[in-house]
Amino acid sequence: MDLATEVTPSEAGTILTVDLAAIVANWQTLRVVCGDAECAAVVKADAYGLGLGPVVKALYEAGCKTFFVAHAFEGRAARAIAPDAAIFVLNGMRPNTAPLYADFNLAPVLCSVPEIEDWGQYCAVTGRRTPEGGLLPAAFRLETGLNQLGLKPYDLEHGIHLSHLFDVTLVMTQLARAEHGEAIAKQIEKFEIMRMRLPKARASIANSGAIFLEANPLYDVVRPGYALYGGNPTPGRPNPMKPVVRLESQVIQVRILEPGERVGEDQGWAARGPRRISTISAGTADGIPQSLTKTKNGAGGAAIVQGKRCPYIGGVGMDLVAVDTSDSGYIERGDIVELIGPSITIDDFAAAAGVSGYEILTRLGQRCHRRYQKL
Amino acid sequence: MDLATEVTPSEAGTILTVDLAAIVANWQTLRVVCGDAECAAVVKADAYGLGLGPVVKALYEAGCKTFFVAHAFEGRAARAIAPDAAIFVLNGMRPNTAPLYADFNLAPVLCSVPEIEDWGQYCAVTGRRTPEGGLLPAAFRLETGLNQLGLKPYDLEHGIHLSHLFDVTLVMTQLARAEHGEAIAKQIEKFEIMRMRLPKARASIANSGAIFLEANPLYDVVRPGYALYGGNPTPGRPNPMKPVVRLESQVIQVRILEPGERVGEDQGWAARGPRRISTISAGTADGIPQSLTKTKNGAGGAAIVQGKRCPYIGGVGMDLVAVDTSDSGYIERGDIVELIGPSITIDDFAAAAGVSGYEILTRLGQRCHRRYQKL
Repeated sequence: MDLATEVTPSEAGTILTVDLAAIVANWQTLRVVCGDAECAAVVKADAYGLGLGPVVKALYEAGCKTFFVAHAFEGRAARAIAPDAAIFVLNGMRPNTAPLYADFNLAPVLCSVPEIEDWGQYCAVTGRRTPEGGLLPAAFRLETGLNQLGLKPYDLEHGIHLSHLFDVTLVMTQLARAEHGEAIAKQIEKFEIMRMRLPKARASIANSGAIFLEANPLYDVVRPGYALYGGNPTPGRPNPMKPVVRLESQVIQVRILEPGERVGEDQGWAARGPRRISTISAGTADGIPQSLTKTKNGAGGAAIVQGKRCPYIGGVGMDLVAVDTSDSGYIERGDIVELIGPSITIDDFAAAAGVSGYEILTRLGQRCHRRYQKL
Repeated sequence: MDLATEVTPSEAGTILTVDLAAIVANWQTLRVVCGDAECAAVVKADAYGLGLGPVVKALYEAGCKTFFVAHAFEGRAARAIAPDAAIFVLNGMRPNTAPLYADFNLAPVLCSVPEIEDWGQYCAVTGRRTPEGGLLPAAFRLETGLNQLGLKPYDLEHGIHLSHLFDVTLVMTQLARAEHGEAIAKQIEKFEIMRMRLPKARASIANSGAIFLEANPLYDVVRPGYALYGGNPTPGRPNPMKPVVRLESQVIQVRILEPGERVGEDQGWAARGPRRISTISAGTADGIPQSLTKTKNGAGGAAIVQGKRCPYIGGVGMDLVAVDTSDSGYIERGDIVELIGPSITIDDFAAAAGVSGYEILTRLGQRCHRRYQKL
């Protein structure tokens, strides 16, 4: 251990435990659900903050052959671990970045005519090939209703015109959230119509949530992200996925408050009777959102201390937050508390903070001691 | 450049520019404001996400002699750059971590009797000394009203009893936010009374905001954090600090919408007339909070595109967000947009998202290309 840089568990503000076996189990569960469709894995944003390297390694060894990332630099990190996997880069291909893709055999997900022109020109001029000698890969992203990225019907002539310069291995789109069933139905219809005009290629539209939609054809490749990491892809129904992360922190100080005493910089919480509160070593810089104690209805979040739910009180600081441990068992400095884990799922935590689970996940790794072990 | 791991500017989702000279200038401004008091620097949480190493180096070379961090591992990183600085570790000293402090001559900020006992016992048993041969340093944190960390009057006998085993170089407390003037006055009174019972030591109570309070004595050491990084320490009045950060992103795709067309996974925004929208390569995984487009009153945040304020629309995704660029000049793929900078301060950005500026700052460095240059 290099004392100068290592975050040791005993001093870490937060300890993030990531269960790689659970990620693999979730991938295998989804693979069964998806039947004949290939189950890929979305590992963008450092695998949702859990560590792209270890996550890609675990999934690759389990048989995952296709990965989706947002940026080319993420794709290069995945390539170092998965030498023969298909790696798709979702966030478009910027001007003058073609070599960053070609050097590592990354497939840009082309979403506009200028991108198709860039990639086609690069492939034609350089004559570069994949390690197997084929044309370089690419995907087409079709715009079907989100109006963010993708080709519209009037873009397709260009797409067809230039697509012989590279290998279009995938045609994809992204769906609206599950609750917008009507919009999704229209999206699928548009996708079908546009696909007919394109050269034959595998198709992909389903993310974690869409995999479980009754109406939703899975096509050839499904691309779960959030569900792999333990998030519930079926909101409102029991979570079919295994939990993947546990976030713990330590009690720094326990204090008895008299009625009327206040807590925090904003003095926003006052003890209504005698209370025992505990200050724990976690804050916004550890990925705990301020909104966790700011909910107008007073519900807010809670940590698990000695098996009891203890509400956050008094505002989340950069490094500290207090919880009301009046109803927990005996507690003292150094005790471990659960912020996310068996009793508080990632979905519970996110709901209490009023943000999406993936916003929470990607923030947890900022200043933690991260360890990979079974939960 | 190591292509496999480097985030090149041309492909980065966000580019974070940090002006180290501005941080130094802000420190010098604060030093003048603080007169005879020593101006320290708070560099916890990777120097508010801007890079502890470069920030400490710049301030140390400018003459800063005292640094505050939250955790011992942050202190060790600072020690590698500032060999003879005083480094205080704010988040308490956990059980069995004393060697982590002693090995790098870090001063734990002791906030409870068990911590005083641990540190005193460690110093007595090992007989360890500073490089100069003195007793190991420590600070006492006094609880005066926030009820998070610190010694109460009834703890002081223990503090005095054991404090000959180490060198109490600082006595400190933390104040409520500037708007709680009455609470702050009581805090200062409590601080004064408790100090009288302690051995003579330098005192510190002022953070960025408190430096500018009329009523607030600066004591011996002031410890600005947020203001060093360009945040306004005087909310509601002109910001006396220089801006320190600029956050930019790239346009991936520009699209014309017909009236009624919707944007985003949540389909939450619809064009009321013909609109030109631009999807940019930044999202929650780059530190852009979802709350930026979720404000109930519809105000929300805006990016600067071709000199025009363009509102965020349609929800912030993990990697993407759209802005309404109908009123900007000609715009195309690859164009740079300003998310934080000359026109949108860190305080503006935070206010639009409904969170504190320091929560924003610490999230910006997660997935950016970070560069250090003058703004």
